[in-house]
Amino acid sequence: MLEDLKKQVCQANHELKEHNLVIYSWGNVSGIDRQQGIIAIKPSGIAYDDLTPGKIVLVDLDGKKVEGELKPSSDTPTHLELYRQFKDIGGVCHTHSTYATIWAQSCRGIPCFGTTHADYFYGPVPVTSELTKEQIESNYELNTGKVIIERFAQLDPLQVPAVLVANHGPFAWGASTSQAVENAVVLEQTAKMALGTIRINPDQPAISKVLLDKHFLRKHGKNAYYGQK
Amino acid sequence: MLEDLKKQVCQANHELKEHNLVIYSWGNVSGIDRQQGIIAIKPSGIAYDDLTPGKIVLVDLDGKKVEGELKPSSDTPTHLELYRQFKDIGGVCHTHSTYATIWAQSCRGIPCFGTTHADYFYGPVPVTSELTKEQIESNYELNTGKVIIERFAQLDPLQVPAVLVANHGPFAWGASTSQAVENAVVLEQTAKMALGTIRINPDQPAISKVLLDKHFLRKHGKNAYYGQK
Amino acid sequence: MLEDLKKQVCQANHELKEHNLVIYSWGNVSGIDRQQGIIAIKPSGIAYDDLTPGKIVLVDLDGKKVEGELKPSSDTPTHLELYRQFKDIGGVCHTHSTYATIWAQSCRGIPCFGTTHADYFYGPVPVTSELTKEQIESNYELNTGKVIIERFAQLDPLQVPAVLVANHGPFAWGASTSQAVENAVVLEQTAKMALGTIRINPDQPAISKVLLDKHFLRKHGKNAYYGQK
Amino acid sequence: MLEDLKKQVCQANHELKEHNLVIYSWGNVSGIDRQQGIIAIKPSGIAYDDLTPGKIVLVDLDGKKVEGELKPSSDTPTHLELYRQFKDIGGVCHTHSTYATIWAQSCRGIPCFGTTHADYFYGPVPVTSELTKEQIESNYELNTGKVIIERFAQLDPLQVPAVLVANHGPFAWGASTSQAVENAVVLEQTAKMALGTIRINPDQPAISKVLLDKHFLRKHGKNAYYGQK
Repeated sequence: MLEDLKKQVCQANHELKEHNLVIYSWGNVSGIDRQQGIIAIKPSGIAYDDLTPGKIVLVDLDGKKVEGELKPSSDTPTHLELYRQFKDIGGVCHTHSTYATIWAQSCRGIPCFGTTHADYFYGPVPVTSELTKEQIESNYELNTGKVIIERFAQLDPLQVPAVLVANHGPFAWGASTSQAVENAVVLEQTAKMALGTIRINPDQPAISKVLLDKHFLRKHGKNAYYGQK
Repeated sequence: MLEDLKKQVCQANHELKEHNLVIYSWGNVSGIDRQQGIIAIKPSGIAYDDLTPGKIVLVDLDGKKVEGELKPSSDTPTHLELYRQFKDIGGVCHTHSTYATIWAQSCRGIPCFGTTHADYFYGPVPVTSELTKEQIESNYELNTGKVIIERFAQLDPLQVPAVLVANHGPFAWGASTSQAVENAVVLEQTAKMALGTIRINPDQPAISKVLLDKHFLRKHGKNAYYGQK
Repeated sequence: MLEDLKKQVCQANHELKEHNLVIYSWGNVSGIDRQQGIIAIKPSGIAYDDLTPGKIVLVDLDGKKVEGELKPSSDTPTHLELYRQFKDIGGVCHTHSTYATIWAQSCRGIPCFGTTHADYFYGPVPVTSELTKEQIESNYELNTGKVIIERFAQLDPLQVPAVLVANHGPFAWGASTSQAVENAVVLEQTAKMALGTIRINPDQPAISKVLLDKHFLRKHGKNAYYGQK
Repeated sequence: MLEDLKKQVCQANHELKEHNLVIYSWGNVSGIDRQQGIIAIKPSGIAYDDLTPGKIVLVDLDGKKVEGELKPSSDTPTHLELYRQFKDIGGVCHTHSTYATIWAQSCRGIPCFGTTHADYFYGPVPVTSELTKEQIESNYELNTGKVIIERFAQLDPLQVPAVLVANHGPFAWGASTSQAVENAVVLEQTAKMALGTIRINPDQPAISKVLLDKHFLRKHGKNAYYGQK
């Protein structure tokens, strides 16, 4: 069932490796069929080269396995919480990509230092609070989702389609699995550029609101004019 | 029409990717036929792998489309302003290449720290002023061209064939499309080396005028003796 | 004899190159057959592309050659000391990988700044003491093993499967040769991320014990739930 | 004539590109036949992909062309000065490799921070003095050779087979063309590691004389025991 979704999710996981965001089995992409409320996700601990659509696991929004011989990613409860709370997203992606993880490990959000960032993220990429002892010891992966949701109380997840989990690494998402991966790729590039920027000027301010508006809105929303739309 | 130019421009766009200056559709190259006053440019938002000469768009110097089914790059008005004001250039290239963008985001020009830089750029690579609120809100891409031109009031664009647009990224150009791309590649390498140089010595001075002259002029101008000329 | 072990060791040495941990002949992997007390190791100074299972050298735990036409790695006495003292390891790997070597040259251990690190190393990756004049001048490679063992007096080598030899570079190990290589690859990635982390925040603290426990123990030990186990 | 030497020199130039030390035509390797006093060198400004043994230029020790249709590298006078003064070298290599050039641009020699460096260079890699106005304006390339020779007044060029020309970039050499290239590759890696080392500890001291001796002399000289010798 949901063969197309499983293919997309499998392909999206392979793209993580092609874009050098992951080594070994350090990342996972999922996608959702909103009508049926079913999520397709990478199995846990499987190398990307061994991943085929038939190995993708299907679970419902409560995490109950619907199809698949393998165990789903250990990060599945985080993905599920994002799908439950961010009603318009279609794909979720988690990696330990180098530069995004460096910012996450530093417990610092990524300021919007330029138009490359503004083309994809409508403001800084936020960092979550650190999980408490209780949040870590019990239902850790679910609580990872909860601190993300908490951090987005005032943010639109499709305008800022990524987050840094403190001490851990990035999650990105999008309207589809392919957009989730693209946002993860851009996040990594943005994180690398931001690190270089503060090396030249540790006090570099974020770009102005008007420049942020210009770039984000020329690619997103009803007045977008970038691309062939 | 202008089949050769479209081929060159298509090829030059592919070179951006081969040299790792771009991901997704983050860059564009154009070329001009000065006799006819027609510019060939990449269509907006198209991935490099899908780009063929037939998809290259032709516009005149006022931006009116002359041929092509697709919309030209959203940066077309910037390219056009450069062609109108820099009468001797034949190609223009825009990227968000990592290290050049880092300097642009830091709103700092790249000092000439060594002979690698001096072989291609006859002095520091300048950074533009930041665009004002008015310049951003109306005719943004045209105004991006205008702040570049303003910055070059005292500079020869073929002696300093690149600029950093503040908060944004680099534009490079040259007598031909292939030289525009080569200058963009060298700019990226120069930007990377300059970042490393100020890490070792934050107060590193630029090289002397006599060394700058020696290297730039042994490769450019009537007394050049580098290469097989 | 021990054809399977020689094949594994040969393959593991090739993986060093595939993962960009080595150039020329700058690294070596060995594996042990615990029943027979025989170690298979890369010959000294041989390029990876020329390495075949037939060139792998067999030595006993005292370093006496058992099979092979070539001289074993000059680092063999270090490997042997690790096998003699760390009774549960099955493979050892030495490289001069860039970022791990940077930390080793700085004589600083790598703090556990995030969950990527915690997934593989149950605490900081330690650095050895510097070898004394006497330790360098006589039995240098054996003494390199001895300072590692000394550093692990209070550590479980399978919980912290790598070390930085001061002024030199990393050694990694594991239950098998392939795990030794994986630990060397992850160490390099961890070292790179840690360097970026202290660039953003020079005083970044290590992650909490509870988060360290959570990540290490979800992948290792009897309560592990990561992967398909 | 000297077909073997031309082949070696051609191959060595291709290796520069394979090891990512050069882009475009930014580097050159030469080799010498000491018996005949003839040097084979890359032609000026030719891309590596277009380079064949037949395009290699032969010159004598005074720089007079002996064979070849193309102009030799503009850096030929520097190579010649090195061959004239360093009687035991067989190959010379010049690049603008990223990290070695960063140190050269900073006018700082590379301290010996670890055994990777000590395996190839018997002490710090020195930087030349800056060329004077007179040295730049007249016979620039010859004078580049002269400041190198001056810097090696107290050094053995086969024990320290590389130099950084201030504000410019590295030259490396060796007993053969392939050793010259290997030394250039290792210099680049050493320069990268040294830059990371001072990022962690700006005051990191060089390794001890006894460790330097141990590593350099286990690979070089009559008591060497590394490799299959």
